Amino acid sequence: MKTISYSDGIVKILDQTILPHKIQYITCQNYEEVAKCIEVMNIRGAPAIGVAAGFGLALAAYHTTKENVDEFKKEIISAANRLRKTRPTAVNLFWAIERILNILNQPGTLRELKEKIIKEALLIAKEDYKINQAIGQHGATLIKNNFNILTHCNAGELATSGEYGTALAVIKVAAEQGKKIHVFADETRPRLQGARLTAFELQQNNIPVTVITDNMAGWVFSQGKIDCVIVGADRILKTGHVTNKIGTYSVAILAKYHDIPFYVAAPKSTFDLKTNYKDVVIEERDKREVTHIGNFQITPTNVPVINPAFDITPPELVTAIITEKGIIYPPYEENIIKIINK
Amino acid sequence: MKTISYSDGIVKILDQTILPHKIQYITCQNYEEVAKCIEVMNIRGAPAIGVAAGFGLALAAYHTTKENVDEFKKEIISAANRLRKTRPTAVNLFWAIERILNILNQPGTLRELKEKIIKEALLIAKEDYKINQAIGQHGATLIKNNFNILTHCNAGELATSGEYGTALAVIKVAAEQGKKIHVFADETRPRLQGARLTAFELQQNNIPVTVITDNMAGWVFSQGKIDCVIVGADRILKTGHVTNKIGTYSVAILAKYHDIPFYVAAPKSTFDLKTNYKDVVIEERDKREVTHIGNFQITPTNVPVINPAFDITPPELVTAIITEKGIIYPPYEENIIKIINK
Repeated sequence: MKTISYSDGIVKILDQTILPHKIQYITCQNYEEVAKCIEVMNIRGAPAIGVAAGFGLALAAYHTTKENVDEFKKEIISAANRLRKTRPTAVNLFWAIERILNILNQPGTLRELKEKIIKEALLIAKEDYKINQAIGQHGATLIKNNFNILTHCNAGELATSGEYGTALAVIKVAAEQGKKIHVFADETRPRLQGARLTAFELQQNNIPVTVITDNMAGWVFSQGKIDCVIVGADRILKTGHVTNKIGTYSVAILAKYHDIPFYVAAPKSTFDLKTNYKDVVIEERDKREVTHIGNFQITPTNVPVINPAFDITPPELVTAIITEKGIIYPPYEENIIKIINK
Repeated sequence: MKTISYSDGIVKILDQTILPHKIQYITCQNYEEVAKCIEVMNIRGAPAIGVAAGFGLALAAYHTTKENVDEFKKEIISAANRLRKTRPTAVNLFWAIERILNILNQPGTLRELKEKIIKEALLIAKEDYKINQAIGQHGATLIKNNFNILTHCNAGELATSGEYGTALAVIKVAAEQGKKIHVFADETRPRLQGARLTAFELQQNNIPVTVITDNMAGWVFSQGKIDCVIVGADRILKTGHVTNKIGTYSVAILAKYHDIPFYVAAPKSTFDLKTNYKDVVIEERDKREVTHIGNFQITPTNVPVINPAFDITPPELVTAIITEKGIIYPPYEENIIKIINK
């Protein structure tokens, strides 16, 4: 079951809004359709969004009707601008788009540029697989036999283009090594990625999982039932601030209070070494995600709600960051650059 | 809109499982029907459950067909045993039942005992109103103008038999005093009492409220948007341990981390000075409350879930406990007894 794939001018996206109850693919023939899939979260997860943006540009290149290079470049830049507007927080989106746009600075005929763009988009997806496997291998050294691990949201294969994921790669590799693991998955309101996607993915991988509502985590910690927390990330700053799914910050505080390690697993492409903490845009999503579950209205009509999709966990709450290049420990201000530039 | 009422052998219970979308009453003619309403949470909230148990015994007394006192007493004790089994955690249930059963030790004819039981049940409900008002008046001294207050679950009139509630009594009295208040209501999975009941109740009282998912609370704290937390309680021990709706403990840790006061509001009847921390029974409810919302299944089929309905917050996280007799500050081991025996 592949999260996303590209072949001959067609992108197929596994519709994650209807998982785990229906397994259904959406076929995209142009970048606008890909952009919409990102916006409504048919595809989600920072690395997967990066791959999707790359494939969106591959579609723009494949189906171009332009006949001169300048017009072609303009068309690709316009597609890039559209894709950039889909979701503001996860940095992999912007990273993948920049990587493709760099090709436009290279010499070549329209046909050559077109092929290079498609090749680069496919390469981003292919690299993602290897990167996730490497994250899993580094991270698994932190996991002992019989560990109970808490995770939040879904940072698994469904959040990437590979079969490992980021946070779940660590768990899967540890399980492959023969370690007995049990996972507590926060359900992760409002979109329920934990209850729907992480539970499904671990079930498929035969890794024991128990779903809890987000507000049960503290109580489970207090019962001594959690040995470590592992989450993914949507953007990691040079200071070690971790932007991730709403609720991550609360989990990090609970881990700190109970003296339990809090790990973040993410590829290099999730690091944003330029932006300052205060300038990170936290996406505010549709209020209906909070007021309704499915078509079921929870709140009274017209009651105000907020819906920030992410929060930011400060470095003092992060025990270590697991990347494909190795594990980064504090002080992050020094050590992130060392590992990332390795 | 009354949560619960008794009149001439009939108990009417506002069905809180379908609020805020439908306002509908359930008519109970016997204690078994009341017991079922408590079990499925048509009525919930520690003080309201206490009142309901009292009314259940009033129904048993009113409709008795026994003709001698001993058989009547046996019947009432049997009804009490049934009602005791409905929900194990909130102590007000047991308190109200004991209060009624004490009447059986008094001398009197069957008719006199019957009348005394009904009178006592009505008195419990009537006292609840005054108690809640007193809680509100004491608590309001802690609330300043323009406060943003976080609450969890519903500790309002819907959780009591009066029109104030416990935690929400503090907010309502502060608002009556002309203070400008804004409330953040945790939605409170799995049963969504915050999103459904607290939002509805505050909306009815014209007190501004914003609903957040439980996992947003940490982020809202970090933005400096919360001035204090007020929650209700289901059982408070002599050590100051507070049993309350699952998620309360997490909120208390978040408050501590951000150096924000965490207040608990509860009547004397919620105090259990006999039971030790380790002996408090945490009710484990139906897994379907976690796997489904309404009829909508969230989790994959057969994924394990847990559903503890309550958690226990230790005294070191509790800034103060607001009762009808006054505000109790640490050290609780000393001060609870002083105030409770006032």
